Amino acid sequence: MMSIARPYLLFLGDARDQLAAKTAEGVFQWRPEWCVGKVRLDGCNADLDLPEMTLEAAIAAGAKTLLVGVANAGGTISERWTGTLVRAVELGMDVASGLHHRLTDVAPLAEAASRNGRRLIDVRHPTQAFDVGQGEPRPGRRLLTVGTDCSVGKMYATLALEAELKRRNRSVAFRATGQTGIFIAGDGVCVDAVVADFISGAVEWLCPPAHADHWDLIEGQGSLFHPSFAGVSLGLLHGARPDVLVMCHEPTRPHMRGLPDRPVPDVAACIEVNLQAAELIQPRPVCVGVAVNTRHMDRDAAARYLATLEDSLGLPCVDPVATGVGPIVDRLA
Amino acid sequence: MMSIARPYLLFLGDARDQLAAKTAEGVFQWRPEWCVGKVRLDGCNADLDLPEMTLEAAIAAGAKTLLVGVANAGGTISERWTGTLVRAVELGMDVASGLHHRLTDVAPLAEAASRNGRRLIDVRHPTQAFDVGQGEPRPGRRLLTVGTDCSVGKMYATLALEAELKRRNRSVAFRATGQTGIFIAGDGVCVDAVVADFISGAVEWLCPPAHADHWDLIEGQGSLFHPSFAGVSLGLLHGARPDVLVMCHEPTRPHMRGLPDRPVPDVAACIEVNLQAAELIQPRPVCVGVAVNTRHMDRDAAARYLATLEDSLGLPCVDPVATGVGPIVDRLA
Repeated sequence: MMSIARPYLLFLGDARDQLAAKTAEGVFQWRPEWCVGKVRLDGCNADLDLPEMTLEAAIAAGAKTLLVGVANAGGTISERWTGTLVRAVELGMDVASGLHHRLTDVAPLAEAASRNGRRLIDVRHPTQAFDVGQGEPRPGRRLLTVGTDCSVGKMYATLALEAELKRRNRSVAFRATGQTGIFIAGDGVCVDAVVADFISGAVEWLCPPAHADHWDLIEGQGSLFHPSFAGVSLGLLHGARPDVLVMCHEPTRPHMRGLPDRPVPDVAACIEVNLQAAELIQPRPVCVGVAVNTRHMDRDAAARYLATLEDSLGLPCVDPVATGVGPIVDRLA
Repeated sequence: MMSIARPYLLFLGDARDQLAAKTAEGVFQWRPEWCVGKVRLDGCNADLDLPEMTLEAAIAAGAKTLLVGVANAGGTISERWTGTLVRAVELGMDVASGLHHRLTDVAPLAEAASRNGRRLIDVRHPTQAFDVGQGEPRPGRRLLTVGTDCSVGKMYATLALEAELKRRNRSVAFRATGQTGIFIAGDGVCVDAVVADFISGAVEWLCPPAHADHWDLIEGQGSLFHPSFAGVSLGLLHGARPDVLVMCHEPTRPHMRGLPDRPVPDVAACIEVNLQAAELIQPRPVCVGVAVNTRHMDRDAAARYLATLEDSLGLPCVDPVATGVGPIVDRLA
């Protein structure tokens, strides 16, 4: 387990706009109690409703890890950030990043970490060895979010389900499979960065046997219909061996992400394909609802869309942020 | 492209038995004209019908690459081999291996290679960066071998198809996706060792656009029904974007490889699942036949099995080694 020390100080760097800081934003939205403050550099155009802090003040407030919550094109570590990251390490913090390029490849940072006995945690790059998946039944209950496309809100849906189950005093764990999710869980595996042979094995490791009434809620990735990532989605589905699926969808998207010629698949067809794909190695799971991201729709259009979809599918259809996931969680009892 | 220099000198090392040298055996079976000789150490229990040679004699005969054709449990590079590998490099040969552990991690070998300007080629570890897959149509014709299980003979079937198409003077290329296949092709990508995000992208790179009557024959891996490897199989299927599938099957296997509780799936069901999985991103391909590995059956039982399967599927069912793949290739015209 990579297990990132908490609380966090969120580094927004010189984020070009709010979108560039969406990692920090997600962490702050779902784990505000783990965030002591933020650090912004000159020219930063993103913000969060958190105190701006010097590194020293953050450490005095208990911060254990400086979390790189900003991304730029190419996933590189900007030279403009290095001074702050090195000082954080010298003052006694770990540094964690979900970028493609590694903190450990930034020479002055690696030297400072080694000198000061601090950790540089590159969550996109799993360091442990996994076994291949076995596909065996295991105790405990598991829910996986799947999607019609990439980036339709699977992480948000999973976290909303976790919050609702916690509210009902159920034993539940959010199992993170992507960078931002890992910061929010404090650990996890970035499945799309695992060597292909070990996709399902890594997910089996991530959600091991549990007691019979515990729910592991597993963050999905990609889509079986996405030609870039379907292999990851299938390995994740097989490794999760879910009892239950929740489909995630974004109705306003004109085409699949990054592929202008490819329409987003039909929700009902996508549910059926996921159930069949799971069934290749396990008993057929049950789809208990659809999480719809209606952020880009006005309120009336969103309500009409959800009602129509609910009628056609005979399943609870909700927006996890706008309407909550109560009707889906009702089905887990 | 890793492009391994030819001809090869096959290193059988101290192979415990013939099975331990199956990589060398496969290379010699399919590319005898690329093999100048073999090297065996004391205690070697595997053999091939090739001249045994000193390194010096092999170089005099033109050998460019010493090919590690032996495997041991764990995929390590035995210390007993190091002396021979280092001398090969010092005498001017490259060394290539498909083992899990890397030649480049054997310090004296890495130093010798650097000193002598020779290459150490670890085919299991892709060195180039791939793009993510796009799933776009591209010219040229592509055939993918798929399977009911791992290790049922997909590579042999693909190579038999290549040989038959060559015999008919067709433009054809064997596209290797595993270690032994890469030695046989001289290049390729070990898809199960690619980072998960890039499975389909690596395969798109491996079989790029081609002229309209050229056939790329792509070596399949795993099975959509195998809980350890289905993600690799789906990414490979989507990256290949095949016009045509050939199903591969081994009828005597009591259960799926490595999974005593899991029966091998039905051939017809497995064909249908592969066609549907391809159809998620492309027009439905056509299954043109079944390649059956009847090695463990007596001749009569094999003939009966093939006839019965052919009747039930309405497709040519052949053993690529025993009966040849002519009836399948007839369907490619």
